[in-house]
Amino acid sequence: MAQSKGRVKSQGIPVGVINRLPHYYRYLSSLMARDVERISSRELASKLGVTASQIRQDLSYFGCFGQPGYGYRVQELQAEIGKILGVNENMHMVLVGAGNLGMALMKYPNFRRRGFYIRAIFDSDINKIGQEVEGIEIKPVSELEKYLSRFNVDIGIIATPAGAAPEIASIFMNGGVKGIWNFAPVSLNPEEGVVIENVHISESLMTLSYKVKEKDK
Amino acid sequence: MAQSKGRVKSQGIPVGVINRLPHYYRYLSSLMARDVERISSRELASKLGVTASQIRQDLSYFGCFGQPGYGYRVQELQAEIGKILGVNENMHMVLVGAGNLGMALMKYPNFRRRGFYIRAIFDSDINKIGQEVEGIEIKPVSELEKYLSRFNVDIGIIATPAGAAPEIASIFMNGGVKGIWNFAPVSLNPEEGVVIENVHISESLMTLSYKVKEKDK
Repeated sequence: MAQSKGRVKSQGIPVGVINRLPHYYRYLSSLMARDVERISSRELASKLGVTASQIRQDLSYFGCFGQPGYGYRVQELQAEIGKILGVNENMHMVLVGAGNLGMALMKYPNFRRRGFYIRAIFDSDINKIGQEVEGIEIKPVSELEKYLSRFNVDIGIIATPAGAAPEIASIFMNGGVKGIWNFAPVSLNPEEGVVIENVHISESLMTLSYKVKEKDK
Repeated sequence: MAQSKGRVKSQGIPVGVINRLPHYYRYLSSLMARDVERISSRELASKLGVTASQIRQDLSYFGCFGQPGYGYRVQELQAEIGKILGVNENMHMVLVGAGNLGMALMKYPNFRRRGFYIRAIFDSDINKIGQEVEGIEIKPVSELEKYLSRFNVDIGIIATPAGAAPEIASIFMNGGVKGIWNFAPVSLNPEEGVVIENVHISESLMTLSYKVKEKDK
């Protein structure tokens, strides 16, 4: 993968910073779509709901961006953050679970646009196997191991019910998948050398519910 | 809504704290499911990937929990955090968009279990209108306004394509919905008195991608 030279090594970076970068990236992309060429650090901060100094501090982990009195060049900053995040690096992903959530992920337009490609889909449902989604045929989950032995898979996506998730995670880990994106409502623990991102959508609902309650006060 | 007495007022609480609480809640629930009665603050912290002092500090915004040398009573702490978050308060939710993502949300078991009820579904697709999902009939989106005028809706869920989202958001806001949970890949800005939680699943993919790249180094 392409790596930027002369930058501060980015391991040991606080989780908060890593979680904010995609947010910056997405907002800068939306500015580009509106042909905005530059933005002051104050305005950027206000739109992103953080302070200008927070942004400067976050970006300082990766090198210097922005110019005092000028702000940030939108396209340049977006490209740099994209590089840090691994956008447009042609990530090979496979999906297990062709239910509603899996289908929603297949059809989500932003992944491909950012270089994240779901190249295979697996399911255990005999009625789904053989069907095509977005040009990709659903394969039986029994063939997942063989697939992983043939291809270098960057990210395995789990969109199965909770019960099936640990077994799929183990097949992914044994098969050399580098990262697991888990949507099943169960926390998976990573083995050495594998990264797991557990997506818990109900956490975001509880955050909203908290804020709704606060407004009511 | 029920409010705990004698607690520090929880407005002005850092966003980070509010975002961590659901994570604590979910983990404590999983301990309860395994009949764990108490947990030391050190162990709790290690499982949650934060420090023990971070947890103490987060919880201190809401009152005192835990006892030195004893740790936390799991059930008690889970119940207290649940109360703060508005769990089990019978939230009335409506869903607009009966596509794959909307259907996945409908079938997600954890919402109802925590007192979040999707009580109506709306879609603009004539082929979907009239169909039943989990016992609820899909209504035409043209009836959303009327529905909102009749019922006190706490949370409106948007699971439509990006293009339709701003209009739905405005109907929700005009109709008195208190919070909007937006899954459309577009950021919506709240009007006075409405809370919006934008869910950007691609942000979590970019976080994972960053970590995968780091492991590769």
